[in-house]
Amino acid sequence: MSDATLRLAIDAAVASALKEDWGDAGDITSAASVPPEAQLKAAIRARKPGTLSSLDIARRAFELTDPAIRVETVAADGDRLEPGETALIVEGPARSILAAERVALNFLQHMSGVATATRRLVDAIEGTSAKIVCTRKTTPGLRTFEKRAVLHGGGANHRFGLYDAVLIKDNHIAAAGGVREALTRAKAHVGHLVKIEVEVDDLDQLTEVMAIGCDAVLLDNMAPAALREALGVIDGRVIAEASGDIREETVRAVAETGVDRISSGWITHSAPALNLGLDAL
Amino acid sequence: MSDATLRLAIDAAVASALKEDWGDAGDITSAASVPPEAQLKAAIRARKPGTLSSLDIARRAFELTDPAIRVETVAADGDRLEPGETALIVEGPARSILAAERVALNFLQHMSGVATATRRLVDAIEGTSAKIVCTRKTTPGLRTFEKRAVLHGGGANHRFGLYDAVLIKDNHIAAAGGVREALTRAKAHVGHLVKIEVEVDDLDQLTEVMAIGCDAVLLDNMAPAALREALGVIDGRVIAEASGDIREETVRAVAETGVDRISSGWITHSAPALNLGLDAL
Amino acid sequence: MSDATLRLAIDAAVASALKEDWGDAGDITSAASVPPEAQLKAAIRARKPGTLSSLDIARRAFELTDPAIRVETVAADGDRLEPGETALIVEGPARSILAAERVALNFLQHMSGVATATRRLVDAIEGTSAKIVCTRKTTPGLRTFEKRAVLHGGGANHRFGLYDAVLIKDNHIAAAGGVREALTRAKAHVGHLVKIEVEVDDLDQLTEVMAIGCDAVLLDNMAPAALREALGVIDGRVIAEASGDIREETVRAVAETGVDRISSGWITHSAPALNLGLDAL
Amino acid sequence: MSDATLRLAIDAAVASALKEDWGDAGDITSAASVPPEAQLKAAIRARKPGTLSSLDIARRAFELTDPAIRVETVAADGDRLEPGETALIVEGPARSILAAERVALNFLQHMSGVATATRRLVDAIEGTSAKIVCTRKTTPGLRTFEKRAVLHGGGANHRFGLYDAVLIKDNHIAAAGGVREALTRAKAHVGHLVKIEVEVDDLDQLTEVMAIGCDAVLLDNMAPAALREALGVIDGRVIAEASGDIREETVRAVAETGVDRISSGWITHSAPALNLGLDAL
Amino acid sequence: MSDATLRLAIDAAVASALKEDWGDAGDITSAASVPPEAQLKAAIRARKPGTLSSLDIARRAFELTDPAIRVETVAADGDRLEPGETALIVEGPARSILAAERVALNFLQHMSGVATATRRLVDAIEGTSAKIVCTRKTTPGLRTFEKRAVLHGGGANHRFGLYDAVLIKDNHIAAAGGVREALTRAKAHVGHLVKIEVEVDDLDQLTEVMAIGCDAVLLDNMAPAALREALGVIDGRVIAEASGDIREETVRAVAETGVDRISSGWITHSAPALNLGLDAL
Amino acid sequence: MSDATLRLAIDAAVASALKEDWGDAGDITSAASVPPEAQLKAAIRARKPGTLSSLDIARRAFELTDPAIRVETVAADGDRLEPGETALIVEGPARSILAAERVALNFLQHMSGVATATRRLVDAIEGTSAKIVCTRKTTPGLRTFEKRAVLHGGGANHRFGLYDAVLIKDNHIAAAGGVREALTRAKAHVGHLVKIEVEVDDLDQLTEVMAIGCDAVLLDNMAPAALREALGVIDGRVIAEASGDIREETVRAVAETGVDRISSGWITHSAPALNLGLDAL
Repeated sequence: MSDATLRLAIDAAVASALKEDWGDAGDITSAASVPPEAQLKAAIRARKPGTLSSLDIARRAFELTDPAIRVETVAADGDRLEPGETALIVEGPARSILAAERVALNFLQHMSGVATATRRLVDAIEGTSAKIVCTRKTTPGLRTFEKRAVLHGGGANHRFGLYDAVLIKDNHIAAAGGVREALTRAKAHVGHLVKIEVEVDDLDQLTEVMAIGCDAVLLDNMAPAALREALGVIDGRVIAEASGDIREETVRAVAETGVDRISSGWITHSAPALNLGLDAL
Repeated sequence: MSDATLRLAIDAAVASALKEDWGDAGDITSAASVPPEAQLKAAIRARKPGTLSSLDIARRAFELTDPAIRVETVAADGDRLEPGETALIVEGPARSILAAERVALNFLQHMSGVATATRRLVDAIEGTSAKIVCTRKTTPGLRTFEKRAVLHGGGANHRFGLYDAVLIKDNHIAAAGGVREALTRAKAHVGHLVKIEVEVDDLDQLTEVMAIGCDAVLLDNMAPAALREALGVIDGRVIAEASGDIREETVRAVAETGVDRISSGWITHSAPALNLGLDAL
Repeated sequence: MSDATLRLAIDAAVASALKEDWGDAGDITSAASVPPEAQLKAAIRARKPGTLSSLDIARRAFELTDPAIRVETVAADGDRLEPGETALIVEGPARSILAAERVALNFLQHMSGVATATRRLVDAIEGTSAKIVCTRKTTPGLRTFEKRAVLHGGGANHRFGLYDAVLIKDNHIAAAGGVREALTRAKAHVGHLVKIEVEVDDLDQLTEVMAIGCDAVLLDNMAPAALREALGVIDGRVIAEASGDIREETVRAVAETGVDRISSGWITHSAPALNLGLDAL
Repeated sequence: MSDATLRLAIDAAVASALKEDWGDAGDITSAASVPPEAQLKAAIRARKPGTLSSLDIARRAFELTDPAIRVETVAADGDRLEPGETALIVEGPARSILAAERVALNFLQHMSGVATATRRLVDAIEGTSAKIVCTRKTTPGLRTFEKRAVLHGGGANHRFGLYDAVLIKDNHIAAAGGVREALTRAKAHVGHLVKIEVEVDDLDQLTEVMAIGCDAVLLDNMAPAALREALGVIDGRVIAEASGDIREETVRAVAETGVDRISSGWITHSAPALNLGLDAL
Repeated sequence: MSDATLRLAIDAAVASALKEDWGDAGDITSAASVPPEAQLKAAIRARKPGTLSSLDIARRAFELTDPAIRVETVAADGDRLEPGETALIVEGPARSILAAERVALNFLQHMSGVATATRRLVDAIEGTSAKIVCTRKTTPGLRTFEKRAVLHGGGANHRFGLYDAVLIKDNHIAAAGGVREALTRAKAHVGHLVKIEVEVDDLDQLTEVMAIGCDAVLLDNMAPAALREALGVIDGRVIAEASGDIREETVRAVAETGVDRISSGWITHSAPALNLGLDAL
Repeated sequence: MSDATLRLAIDAAVASALKEDWGDAGDITSAASVPPEAQLKAAIRARKPGTLSSLDIARRAFELTDPAIRVETVAADGDRLEPGETALIVEGPARSILAAERVALNFLQHMSGVATATRRLVDAIEGTSAKIVCTRKTTPGLRTFEKRAVLHGGGANHRFGLYDAVLIKDNHIAAAGGVREALTRAKAHVGHLVKIEVEVDDLDQLTEVMAIGCDAVLLDNMAPAALREALGVIDGRVIAEASGDIREETVRAVAETGVDRISSGWITHSAPALNLGLDAL
């Protein structure tokens, strides 16, 4: 992702989230209970250990709420925080900081949750040649930021959507009438800068696919032994990706087979939020 | 939530998610590998047990993609599905179904995850008089649907945003210069149809708050014994809500103290997605 | 309303109104008749007496049109102006000021009209304990600003929309099959931070409602004598609101009955614009 | 206005107003107090006499809320209703009708208010050759519909915005350094399908303007005697428009001078809403 | 067009075009191949001779991409550039400049193409009294900027859309049942600041139109001899516009007949892009 | 492009273009000159020979304007029409057809112009193994439709934007400090489903690039002899694309060198509109 793309995307997402939290009446608690002149200095701190992602989104939540809020980022995306450590300090009008607090935390906790989950898998396979990659199993509306959080957690990105690469899966094969039909047809139709990956479930399919040719194969739901056999067939000619029930406990055995990529939906669709809170200083 | 509100919100969210997944080029895999005339019949089935939420969003993902797709909902929101059981059946042009599949599943898995997590807490406190309620710790952009998923899981809703009720928390108290200042000020300022809840951390604060008066108190991070003592002070005069590290293992002890509401951020910000998949029939 | 909420809302409303007035070709009169280098200094002045509201919207109309326009607010929202007194002074490129003039005035005249109408009712009941409140009978698209104008006129706000409080009216009662059915059902369904108000037309209904319990009652279209009787039944247990044909001539008699709130649709849907104009200095 | 333009504009305005009234939670009163299966038949009736405008907007408020609502328009835009007469009948799910009611009425009351005010001026000048026209002093966001309401009230439209005709007013003249400079410059710059009108305050200015030539003159704030004198100078060569404190009591005297157009800001910015209500049948 | 109108329109168009080019992942080439700290200084230069238009749009493409890019315009809209001459210089972060380059050039090349094409026709009729005007045959979404490019090329603008003037063409005449019916009806219906032009194909139609009266006539597809005859009938009473297959080779003969305006769709819908490129300095 | 993607994109583009042409007042010519009950049957016919593209956009322009318009497409996208041949027939309310006519034609003429230009290059290289491909030099806002028009003209698509493939060009190489630095860096950073193409200007660069490895090379501005030499170096190992001043007269010589792809900006940024018109039947 380029910085320019992100800047516009962040502002749009934050404005929309603020509107969701504020409605038309805004933060009626702060307006009713906090004097307009009250100032606040507060820190966003980790309550559990984890890896940070999207400090810039949190920053913009405060800045878009009130340009008078000063934001200082103390840590950086990708940093691992221990409980009690500070990510970001804000200072300014108390009402404004309190109006922005939840939106800033909702983004930061969710994205840091994704980064933390990714980091767990990445750490678990340290020393192998595999990379952890994400999928399209993302939260609607947040894909761009979740894919970036995967990078902050040490992972790599798969395709961004249906539009930027071809991945032929079981349902495509069923609809096309066979893997040969699907793959042959695809190779004839796609543009010259589009890569093709094919999901295979067994060695027969794999052999057929390798004979036709493609850029990568997705070895779905294969046990380590089957993966090793498949890698023998592939023989380094194309990228080999493994997927299917990837968990912290199982991922190393998969990585040690020698696959190039291990994809996980869990790191984006089921990562628990990282526990962070805003403490008045 | 009224049906009319939801209908417009669902269509907007689905269109935005389809755009996120499609970009400008759309589903180039289906266009390249599946013949245009291919038809498909497929079922969305549970792979793990859980409680459904947002079948109407999944339906609209297919219908907005292609009006030629016929969608039949076999189960209903709030239903508990066992692995292998079917939630929804689609039939129509294969390319269109495959283009919509991931967006339909991303919504359905996420919302059913929230409903399933809620249901776990609700089941754990069965027989007590407490209700499980959600918080504003929701996924940016998805609050309306997550709050509904909480209902599907048997929970109840807290306020929707900063705009529809006053909840004075620790940071407001700090910024206002004390709970007395914050609450007195709030009572004088809010409209006559706005309720006021105050977070209290100990019995002294509680006593002070009860003397001034409010509609509900949030007893934050109190152990069951402290909760019981607090409930004695409250004596049924206002709604008593407990919060703080609510988990499946701890929630029953909290409920058995006699509190009216137990709020959990975990059911919205950290609920793992319910595992569902689309199988060709 | 919080300042942050308003800032975003104002900019959106002003941009939309400028677009409505400018179309694609913009201010062709200024472009054709005024030299590009011409400068202008001008004042927005009252031509009739009234109470100001929304000077910040007027300010943004000029600033969004051209950052080179300097705007000085001489008066404040809530101020009462006599004919000839100045609200705001602008100075800068003449073409830009003339392109923004009508949008600035359309907002300022309308909102000051609402504030002025509210102020008339508020003044008329001075010394009583009642507050003038607005309704949902607002101009489509302008509710947030009209509700703020009511505050500037010395009034208070009722609920903001259908979403932030329950107000059971005659048609709900008809559709639910009686006031008992409607109110009992509502009490069982709403969240714990939602207040319930019920419209009653006579003492029998009022007695029934008070027996079931609610947070406020709306006494609709009752003469002062009936209001007094109703207040006797209510006996200070809930907020009492009166409504129905509230005019400057009739409002004091209503207020003197001792009701807590008097709601008026007239102050938002029928307030005449305050006459203000832009004079070159 | 063409029908096609209106259709898109109406749907956008109604959707936006429904969102303003519903927020994210929607009509919580109906959801809480009215059973989902309840049906309702109701009529929108006049409570005061007046001229209707924008029945199609009211219709769409119901239809966009719920396609299951059947709407029958009993009267037509431009019709004069007496108290108790019916404008429109709705039938369908009670919750949906109640969720749409206020938005439908807010549009219909406001636009019928504009039509009613216009009709009063039009009736007052019956038999003269003058036409009542509106101005750009409209409610931000509602200009298109208010201009149509003026037509429904028997009036005619002036320009729609700054973009479709040139109207040189006092401030343009000031900024350009005189009426000669402003008008000469404008004639040289505008496209060949753009008309030019000039505001004049006295006979000297008028004589100067007539010598240079234009399409229409706006005689601002002139008493009937002065208007007659001005019309003598104009001698039928260009359209003559009168403006300035046009009220029901004063308009006939102005019309009887023989001016072609009489413009009124009052009919759009200060017209009281027509009193209409929804009665369950 | 006024400057204020343009400023908002440009930012909206540029943001939309950047989004079209960036998708969600942004400029992955620059992110992958160029170090984040790399700086670049580059010039946009003409590769073919032509007339510039829309340097401000190019400027905003860079500035909206990254405020750290400094943009210096070396030439001005309307300037004629020879091959190798510089229009604009940018300096700043290399990744950002490369991410913005294509969008900046796509606008600048297209609009300069329109200006260049217009300039060719304008030059070809130098010394005659005719003006080259554009039509509504513009590129969807870009009309405002194309109309301005026509001005930069020395042309003049016709109406902006269907809304700001009446132009009765052959299909209106067919649908209305004759030119008399169409024109008479139009004169009775339009506002007093709306001009009427009528397309005529022969002298009989012209005579009929002149007898009824209008503001301009469009002489469509007439040879120079027929145009001269038509101008004799018109006798200077209304504006005479010629259209139909206007090309660089034919336009002077048309202009020399004495028509007031010559309209060309070619200058907006078929103008080849001006060849400009970004060269690293 | 998938059909579903296009359907949503077309409706958005058409609605926006209609708004651009209609403003707020709509088609005042039809409203003023054509009776509301008038019906019209008309055909869109070619006035010059060419290849059609985007009949579905033209269809939606009529349908979105008025559902009462019946549209029959007589030809298909990709068809070559001779002058006088019919593309599409419309029948319905005359006012609606006339309000939609120009927008329908503006899209259809522009996209058919792109298809026609593409078809010319494709025909010119018939019998060779090269394919004509488009670039990112498209009209802002219309890229998706222009890329489809290229397909209708017999061409193929290059990448859609900056986001779906890596194309390292001269400016990237300059900013990265050499082709080796740029390409090596890119190969290490991109995802496993992203292809890399590199622009080379001479044989030395080509040799260096081939040694490092990539998926395609862009041979920019090379004469046929140089292209042949380059193809010898490439030796079929990667896709070879030629670009630079591709015209109808020069393209065959380029194709006959044996390159795989020939890219042309001219077919999208400079294709003259195909002359089509609406004739009343």
